[in-house]
Amino acid sequence: MFVIGELINGMYPYIGKAIKEKDKATIQKYALSQIQAGADALDINCGPVSKDPLSDIQWLVEVIQEVTEKTLVLDSSKPQVIESGLKVTKNKVIINSTTADLEKLEKLVPLAKQYNAKLIGLTISAKGIPQNKDQRLELAAQIVATCADIGFTPEDLYLDPIVLPVNVAQAQMKDILESIHEFKIISDPSPKTIIGLSNVSQGSSVRNLINRTFLIMAALFGLDAAILDPLDKELMDAVITSDLILNKQIYCDRYLEAYRKK
Amino acid sequence: MFVIGELINGMYPYIGKAIKEKDKATIQKYALSQIQAGADALDINCGPVSKDPLSDIQWLVEVIQEVTEKTLVLDSSKPQVIESGLKVTKNKVIINSTTADLEKLEKLVPLAKQYNAKLIGLTISAKGIPQNKDQRLELAAQIVATCADIGFTPEDLYLDPIVLPVNVAQAQMKDILESIHEFKIISDPSPKTIIGLSNVSQGSSVRNLINRTFLIMAALFGLDAAILDPLDKELMDAVITSDLILNKQIYCDRYLEAYRKK
Repeated sequence: MFVIGELINGMYPYIGKAIKEKDKATIQKYALSQIQAGADALDINCGPVSKDPLSDIQWLVEVIQEVTEKTLVLDSSKPQVIESGLKVTKNKVIINSTTADLEKLEKLVPLAKQYNAKLIGLTISAKGIPQNKDQRLELAAQIVATCADIGFTPEDLYLDPIVLPVNVAQAQMKDILESIHEFKIISDPSPKTIIGLSNVSQGSSVRNLINRTFLIMAALFGLDAAILDPLDKELMDAVITSDLILNKQIYCDRYLEAYRKK
Repeated sequence: MFVIGELINGMYPYIGKAIKEKDKATIQKYALSQIQAGADALDINCGPVSKDPLSDIQWLVEVIQEVTEKTLVLDSSKPQVIESGLKVTKNKVIINSTTADLEKLEKLVPLAKQYNAKLIGLTISAKGIPQNKDQRLELAAQIVATCADIGFTPEDLYLDPIVLPVNVAQAQMKDILESIHEFKIISDPSPKTIIGLSNVSQGSSVRNLINRTFLIMAALFGLDAAILDPLDKELMDAVITSDLILNKQIYCDRYLEAYRKK
């Protein structure tokens, strides 16, 4: 599982404050602590309070690149913020995200090509959130088709089925999980799959338990990547043990430590 | 998930001693504590040290029936021990187990019919343990076919794919999990599926974590029942949360407590 740390997001008060005060030390601390906990990449989002996101995202990228060469995941719903971040990114990069709307795809897919970036495609459109597996597959196919038209390989595309909270969309959970499996057979070569995990437990009282149970199920259905909190040790234990059972990490008695030292 | 408590087994020293000394209180304590923790049924095995298993299994059944009406799972590789237990069982009962060998099937399937019992069929034979999914499916089909010949409905049959330890059979884990899914489509109506969970972590240093991760995956593939330690609270939390995500228990904020009070 490719683990993307979610903590550098301006919606968290400690990050919002650090961005506002240009407090490098706090940002770099959260970058390094997530990597130490096992993150392969870091999501970067200025958050809703940023008054100058075009400048803030560049500051975040530069500050984080001072301490790590890990992949950066530029996270914004605004293509111009993504583009601003891309201009200063030296590390590998993933664009987070496009929707299935043609208008967005035609901006972001060429941008991803131009900057040699990978791209997250949300199976959502201006019409709203999909209500079942068929709607998810239809939106996924639209994204894959547009990428093909523009000459962007599906191997650089991460499809996201849009995880809904179990407390409001319990009947859709199995559909969401099965979408992960079915996205992989939309094209050959296969697109990759990703989820933003924490939404599954939004509003629930035992969030961590619901997060890790859902993630283990998603892993079995072939999930390639997840945006999550790597400082949740039990969640990372679940990620690592899923990799073990699915034969993606060789067994040794101290396999948890072995993974974290990788 | 139908949870079968595994703790009343003479291989555990405290149970072996209680059987030898005819210590009712200890047996009844382990029966009730497993039920309180969420077990739907209790496995009963005299263990390897019993000198008179035909008598010991009857004593265990009678002692446990004094305190509960839950399903009893008579566990022995010897058909005559199973038959002895069946003679005194008043509760619902599951026979644990037959192999795919015709000699065993021809004894145990009629016995299950005669006593209106359900039956666990291990996908194993005198030739040994299956090495892949195809061999598991072949043995499962043999069991289902023999049941059909004798007029035993697949709905009363629990097929067990034989869970191997991850530290010696890591490459087979996915095959074992997929077998659970494929057993369900061998016949219509479907047979049920079951695993003896704890073998997956045999010899590993973090047994509970491996157990619960594997069980969540098996749940996603449609596992109906598991023999496990219900006193492992985190394992039961995983069982209950799997049921929640798979929409088998209605969401409420205190869903863990709601399940345990059921």
